[in-house]
Amino acid sequence: MITISDIAAKLGISKSTVSKALNNATDISVSMRKRVLETAAEMGYINKKLSGAEKKLCILIENMDFETPNQFGHDIVEGFRQMAETDGWLVEVVPLTMEFQRLTPYGVFMLDHGYQAAFILGFSLLDSWMQEFKHTQIPTVLYDNYIKNNPYVASVGCDNQEGVELAVKHLIELGHRKIGLISGPLDSYILKARYHAYLSALKKYGLEINEDYVGLGYFVAESTRAYIPKLLNHGVTAILFSHDVRAFSAMTECSDRGIQIPRDLSIIGFDDLPMTAYTMPPLTTIRQDRHGLGRCGYFAITCLLGGLPIGSILLRAPLIVRDSTGPAPTD
Amino acid sequence: MITISDIAAKLGISKSTVSKALNNATDISVSMRKRVLETAAEMGYINKKLSGAEKKLCILIENMDFETPNQFGHDIVEGFRQMAETDGWLVEVVPLTMEFQRLTPYGVFMLDHGYQAAFILGFSLLDSWMQEFKHTQIPTVLYDNYIKNNPYVASVGCDNQEGVELAVKHLIELGHRKIGLISGPLDSYILKARYHAYLSALKKYGLEINEDYVGLGYFVAESTRAYIPKLLNHGVTAILFSHDVRAFSAMTECSDRGIQIPRDLSIIGFDDLPMTAYTMPPLTTIRQDRHGLGRCGYFAITCLLGGLPIGSILLRAPLIVRDSTGPAPTD
Repeated sequence: MITISDIAAKLGISKSTVSKALNNATDISVSMRKRVLETAAEMGYINKKLSGAEKKLCILIENMDFETPNQFGHDIVEGFRQMAETDGWLVEVVPLTMEFQRLTPYGVFMLDHGYQAAFILGFSLLDSWMQEFKHTQIPTVLYDNYIKNNPYVASVGCDNQEGVELAVKHLIELGHRKIGLISGPLDSYILKARYHAYLSALKKYGLEINEDYVGLGYFVAESTRAYIPKLLNHGVTAILFSHDVRAFSAMTECSDRGIQIPRDLSIIGFDDLPMTAYTMPPLTTIRQDRHGLGRCGYFAITCLLGGLPIGSILLRAPLIVRDSTGPAPTD
Repeated sequence: MITISDIAAKLGISKSTVSKALNNATDISVSMRKRVLETAAEMGYINKKLSGAEKKLCILIENMDFETPNQFGHDIVEGFRQMAETDGWLVEVVPLTMEFQRLTPYGVFMLDHGYQAAFILGFSLLDSWMQEFKHTQIPTVLYDNYIKNNPYVASVGCDNQEGVELAVKHLIELGHRKIGLISGPLDSYILKARYHAYLSALKKYGLEINEDYVGLGYFVAESTRAYIPKLLNHGVTAILFSHDVRAFSAMTECSDRGIQIPRDLSIIGFDDLPMTAYTMPPLTTIRQDRHGLGRCGYFAITCLLGGLPIGSILLRAPLIVRDSTGPAPTD
């Protein structure tokens, strides 16, 4: 366990200067504070005696909307907050950019703000802090990401494998044989997981795996516009989407082209956003219980703070059958 | 949701008779009570209004010692109890036999005793209630077992894959190349998982997979006696054991045969039982945080009782390096 004395010795300064820097005192220069925080973070110092009586956690968010109840992240944040605040924590929600991560190491950021643990939402594999998470000793819980072998980092998410398998089984029961996938790019842990779940479900049920049935693209509307006709030309009769918002975009696209859902094409989303029940037709989708994910995220943080090395918590991802899936068209 | 009226209608009896049976009233015959409970369980009835104010959970145990602090199940039970009792639950620990399971369906047993949820320890794939868990609607949490697609059943355990991989990596760093496994029989979900984790770790590190390096047997001492010389004859220099108790038995066996641990043979256990630190030599082993497993089991039950379909919680399984592993012998 790294102490204030260790940091002072390393920097050749007094313990009181280190303490001032860590406790955000005003009578210390900005540059000295920065030096102390960087060194402390590098040495793996954990600030357990924060100044004041504040118990502070943060939710760090990238690439995820959360401000309104219709947005994906909203209920995750709410579920987490409700449990944490009941336990007396102050929870701060901090949207982040990749640029910010490149300029400030995770350890420095956490010490600087006095956060004791973090819940991380929406990070891709390209985020630079993902590298730091491999070695951090700060209790850190990742939604939809996984870090091997670090007992200070836990993961929460849904069982993509089970969810995608239920979706493929449902389509097979409706007579579909050529099943496609339209997804965001595979620079995300979870999109990789869904892609592999799709392949393994097709394999399990003996369906054809064909790269022409798959469309990957960053921009939602553009990739939907490009891939829907391409997949239909290849005889695909049902498409899984990596997110509900992509399925919504497919509804618009199909409507523009006179393709009727589900008569001509069955589609399945992923997430079960609040508005899925009100689209035309209501969307069949794989549910993520986002409020529950937030609660599990907080539970995982309490485990890590208490020294219990939780690795992962997975929720079931049930298939919610609505009207966007129907019998395969007969030629 | 099945009601008392549904059960009464099905049996052609009055609602009050059903109610008496479910609430364990004395003015009803044993045979009528049995008929009502069996029908109620079959119909998936959940008794939410239990008589009295009792909130009751059970821990059902088979094949696992738990009475004293040195025994494997002890801390799992304690971790569960501490959290559940703090929340006002009465927790009953019920050792079970396979015979009992064959005579009484799970649903009937739970209704009969007024338990609202169960934490299941030590069941093998052969236990007949495992079949019932596939369809039960009673909140049920399994330690070291997994049921697919049933949102009323969750699973807690350790990350066997990660733990076994750490063990194999440790042995490779010590120069071992022929690594064996001595395990209980594969009629257990978790022993299957450990066996496959062993195979996949060998594969990952490019080591030879050879069935002569593996010994599976039900009886601990007998199988150790048979397999240790066999594996040594095949040039194995390090052995993983599926449980610490098997590794303890190997220590006795090696001592009898004049085989020195770790000079002649490195051994690694699984569990990190309290006495592993005091064996001669102290045992290198893969830790299961049993108190933490109990706490996670209770958290999973609270999720299921609240309608959150938790699927699994996995703890990390860190490798605890002591003195039973050393450099591979040079011939």
